[in-house]
Amino acid sequence: MSKKLSVSKYKENFPNSKKSYTIGSSDDIKVPSREIKLSPTKDRNNNLQENKPIHVYDTTGLYTDEDYNIDLEKGLKPTCTKWINDRGDTTSKDRSIKSKLNNTKASLKSRVGKQDKNVSQMHYAKKGIITPEMEFVSIRENLNLNESWITPEIVRDEIALGRAIIPCNINHPEVEPMIIGKKFLTKVNANIGNSPVSSSINEELDKLLWSVRWGADTVMDLSTGKNLYKTRENIIRNSPVPIGTVPIYDALERVKGKPEDLSYDIFREVLIDQAEQGVDYFTIHAGLLLRYIPFTSNRLTGIVSRGGSIIAKWCLYHHQENFLYTNFNDICEIMKKYNVCFSLGDGLRPGSIYDANDKAQFSELKTLGELTKLAWQHDVQVMIEGPGHIPLHKIKENVELEEELCSEAPFYTLGPLVTDIAPGYDHITSAIGAANIGSFGTSLLCYVTPKEHLGLPNKKDVKDGLIAYKIAAHAADLAKLHPAAVSRDNALSKARFEFRWNDQFNLSLDPYSAKNMHDETLPQESAKVAHFCSMCGPHFCSMKITQDIREYAQDKGIASFDEAISIGLDEKSKEFKMLGKKIYIKN
Amino acid sequence: MSKKLSVSKYKENFPNSKKSYTIGSSDDIKVPSREIKLSPTKDRNNNLQENKPIHVYDTTGLYTDEDYNIDLEKGLKPTCTKWINDRGDTTSKDRSIKSKLNNTKASLKSRVGKQDKNVSQMHYAKKGIITPEMEFVSIRENLNLNESWITPEIVRDEIALGRAIIPCNINHPEVEPMIIGKKFLTKVNANIGNSPVSSSINEELDKLLWSVRWGADTVMDLSTGKNLYKTRENIIRNSPVPIGTVPIYDALERVKGKPEDLSYDIFREVLIDQAEQGVDYFTIHAGLLLRYIPFTSNRLTGIVSRGGSIIAKWCLYHHQENFLYTNFNDICEIMKKYNVCFSLGDGLRPGSIYDANDKAQFSELKTLGELTKLAWQHDVQVMIEGPGHIPLHKIKENVELEEELCSEAPFYTLGPLVTDIAPGYDHITSAIGAANIGSFGTSLLCYVTPKEHLGLPNKKDVKDGLIAYKIAAHAADLAKLHPAAVSRDNALSKARFEFRWNDQFNLSLDPYSAKNMHDETLPQESAKVAHFCSMCGPHFCSMKITQDIREYAQDKGIASFDEAISIGLDEKSKEFKMLGKKIYIKN
Repeated sequence: MSKKLSVSKYKENFPNSKKSYTIGSSDDIKVPSREIKLSPTKDRNNNLQENKPIHVYDTTGLYTDEDYNIDLEKGLKPTCTKWINDRGDTTSKDRSIKSKLNNTKASLKSRVGKQDKNVSQMHYAKKGIITPEMEFVSIRENLNLNESWITPEIVRDEIALGRAIIPCNINHPEVEPMIIGKKFLTKVNANIGNSPVSSSINEELDKLLWSVRWGADTVMDLSTGKNLYKTRENIIRNSPVPIGTVPIYDALERVKGKPEDLSYDIFREVLIDQAEQGVDYFTIHAGLLLRYIPFTSNRLTGIVSRGGSIIAKWCLYHHQENFLYTNFNDICEIMKKYNVCFSLGDGLRPGSIYDANDKAQFSELKTLGELTKLAWQHDVQVMIEGPGHIPLHKIKENVELEEELCSEAPFYTLGPLVTDIAPGYDHITSAIGAANIGSFGTSLLCYVTPKEHLGLPNKKDVKDGLIAYKIAAHAADLAKLHPAAVSRDNALSKARFEFRWNDQFNLSLDPYSAKNMHDETLPQESAKVAHFCSMCGPHFCSMKITQDIREYAQDKGIASFDEAISIGLDEKSKEFKMLGKKIYIKN
Repeated sequence: MSKKLSVSKYKENFPNSKKSYTIGSSDDIKVPSREIKLSPTKDRNNNLQENKPIHVYDTTGLYTDEDYNIDLEKGLKPTCTKWINDRGDTTSKDRSIKSKLNNTKASLKSRVGKQDKNVSQMHYAKKGIITPEMEFVSIRENLNLNESWITPEIVRDEIALGRAIIPCNINHPEVEPMIIGKKFLTKVNANIGNSPVSSSINEELDKLLWSVRWGADTVMDLSTGKNLYKTRENIIRNSPVPIGTVPIYDALERVKGKPEDLSYDIFREVLIDQAEQGVDYFTIHAGLLLRYIPFTSNRLTGIVSRGGSIIAKWCLYHHQENFLYTNFNDICEIMKKYNVCFSLGDGLRPGSIYDANDKAQFSELKTLGELTKLAWQHDVQVMIEGPGHIPLHKIKENVELEEELCSEAPFYTLGPLVTDIAPGYDHITSAIGAANIGSFGTSLLCYVTPKEHLGLPNKKDVKDGLIAYKIAAHAADLAKLHPAAVSRDNALSKARFEFRWNDQFNLSLDPYSAKNMHDETLPQESAKVAHFCSMCGPHFCSMKITQDIREYAQDKGIASFDEAISIGLDEKSKEFKMLGKKIYIKN
């Protein structure tokens, strides 16, 4: 890297938070979470009642571990190396990358599955093996619960059935394993990557650290500019979360940007190079068949997937079937040697409300379903990419069809945007779609930033996109009744009601912004325990009045609220007559 | 006003936009819209094809009429005076306001329905009369349609049935009539108003103009600070959109902030004062009954409605039934003399995910349904206020119950927020809920700003809240298949696909931000017609590649995309075999 990136800002944890680890069945299964310490509740007589700390899912990796020394040149300390080595089914080899492409100083060694060995997590799962990776993710999903909701066996089972994946290339041991599947917490992906017009390696590395800080569960490096190999190497070595790519971009770069010059041989080279680097999942547009291209001709916005349009151009130029489709078995052979997952790309996803749920889109989805089964024959893990631009009333059909056609392989959607009219605010238009599609069972939500359709996102855009998507994912988890989801809402609402302002800020997705907004009008430290805010002022706060009411009722001996409720709950029809006067008359 | 507010910025229309009027059955029915002029489509041979201008719903009033001279001291030129006078059922009177409260220079005259005259729009509708107000709103709803979708008769019918309302107090003739109801475009309300801690009359007036500029269909003045009467007077005289209030705030101010000192007499005074000023709808918490208060005792966040908590405190202190409930008939008598609408308040709405859809909330809703029927006996227009904080999976039940219990009176909801964990971003958490509840049939969405729960919103917050809600409302309209909704999406997507960048910006909800974001990386004027942006750079643009594909196919004589599609559409099962090779083989 030309200029050193300052990392001290990434070391600092969130306010009143500390890194916490849960240890699994062996010491090396050390699962991170962020523990938010809360202040006690003070009752009217100044008695204190403790509030248990809340643990939240932590994607920041070792960066927020105060005992860890960050060294971006060296990369992160690996989590998984021992587990990979212990299995004894991989071997070391020199990387295949041709020297002219490799302008990185990184090690040129990588690991690969031994002859006849399949090292995918699905392969182990199908054989009944619970890997340390599986145990790790199971612990990671059980936040603030007294009993395990997700057991290692559930994880194994879901992976064996293809309903969940753990993306963890054996050459990316720096990853902290995470799981993507309907039964689990809804995850969020952030896209980063330079473009020929903008951005450097350091900027992208900065965006990576920034992304995991704000909750990205996976990150895609979508670089299309210079130094692809080196940029990717830097990103992978420093990423605690799985990294995905769209290999066709790299391939296109190798044929100087001419889609017609692509070939499977070149693409295959790219796959191996990237698998050796440690990419955890590949977006591969193998479902875009020659015969589907005409279906896009009366679309309003044609083909909006970059990968899709590249493949379409190739197919049409050569009048041949998509080489990703015709070589799919060979691709599987490569991927199972590294545990790379498929993210089967939707090259024909709609790019506008007008094109939503059309023939082109669903034809491709059907083929993706067929390819899923093929991949599973190789025990290669699969997720399916989805739209795009979909109006609210057409979202559910996408999930239903995906589950039906693709045998419940995890769905990974981009938004969808529920209207086209808000460029500059598409993190919001798409968070609406994302929350909905998530609530129907989509496992991974690819974020959209405010810059979508307009330009390359900067750090502010990345953060805005991520916060919108953490909201969407969490809203989906609440709707899916995930027991680990609701604890944070309840803790925050309790803090709000009790005027524990700092706790309210600290429990929020963005404590800094929450505090700053509050402090715009009431910056004094005393206002952090005040029973009002600037919205209504001291005499109008409804929550204060409610507390007054409760105290008043207590003083007057009208304490028997619970009694009233228990009568009322007995029978719905009676409540309107029975309650009320009887109770209040006694005073 | 102490310091003069600069209004020149409000006079300027949006880029490439002009005020347009559609004239109804008489010249004084002059219905505004904003016309966005588009540039022509240029095909590969540089032939130009015209793109029709797009009309969008325009809430900015006369402020963006270039022929109008703004004078905030004088107030807006009235729209409805002639219609009100022509009906001959009202008379002029001195305002009742006591001098000590009235520190405004405004006229002290107001109009009121003559003895035994009911001047509500519902009254006319039930008698079969189509008022100019009804015709006005019917024209306003038919944007970019060749045929009328909404006829004046549909409007009359919906109002007569109570399924829609036109809030237009006869003392607010400055209003441009608008309609709130399930069959119509989903509307958005913005809350403004000072608090004892912050803000002045000029600031609030500035927020009003700012709100209508960014698409507020109605505005509530929720002031709880000083100079309530004067602030409200300034707001109403300058508002082209209906103004709502929560009269209990004003009443509480008159008893020096002590809920227990409230009485119906004081409240009645407030109602008359505000009706004489021209408030278009009143939030009245008449459904919060004494016997429901205990149902809130095991809530996480008690009572979060300010009005609700004030009433609850009064009820409990006096051990008496809510005086708004016991005097409901008298309230109706007042309201029908001015055509003020009820916004029946949900004093027991949930303030957290934990409290959503509980007994307290739905008990009150049932009572609101009973009061709706009572109001309709007086021909007083009604809408019903709704939550609050509701997780995604519990939203639909709210709409279904509201429609059942309240006989389809228009639903007016605050959000709902679909999670509690994002203070600072609650415009997003609630826009998710708002889009959903809107798609199920909620007619008016009360915006939530990023400052919600944290402080009084400033202008930036107001704009952010409004944009998020315009997105939500529009997404709901698309889902409801409203024919006037989709034209803007399609026009924008077409512009996007054709790289008409300026058209894309100008058709968006916020042209300035869209352009600024684009220009961050590519500020040159030449980039406004360039076939790429900074996201992917010139070689990677999928839309450019799609266009290349289409041109290539045309050149090669593979033009028959349409033919291919028509074959394919015939029979779904055949398509996978029939298409493709046949077509492409010819080259």
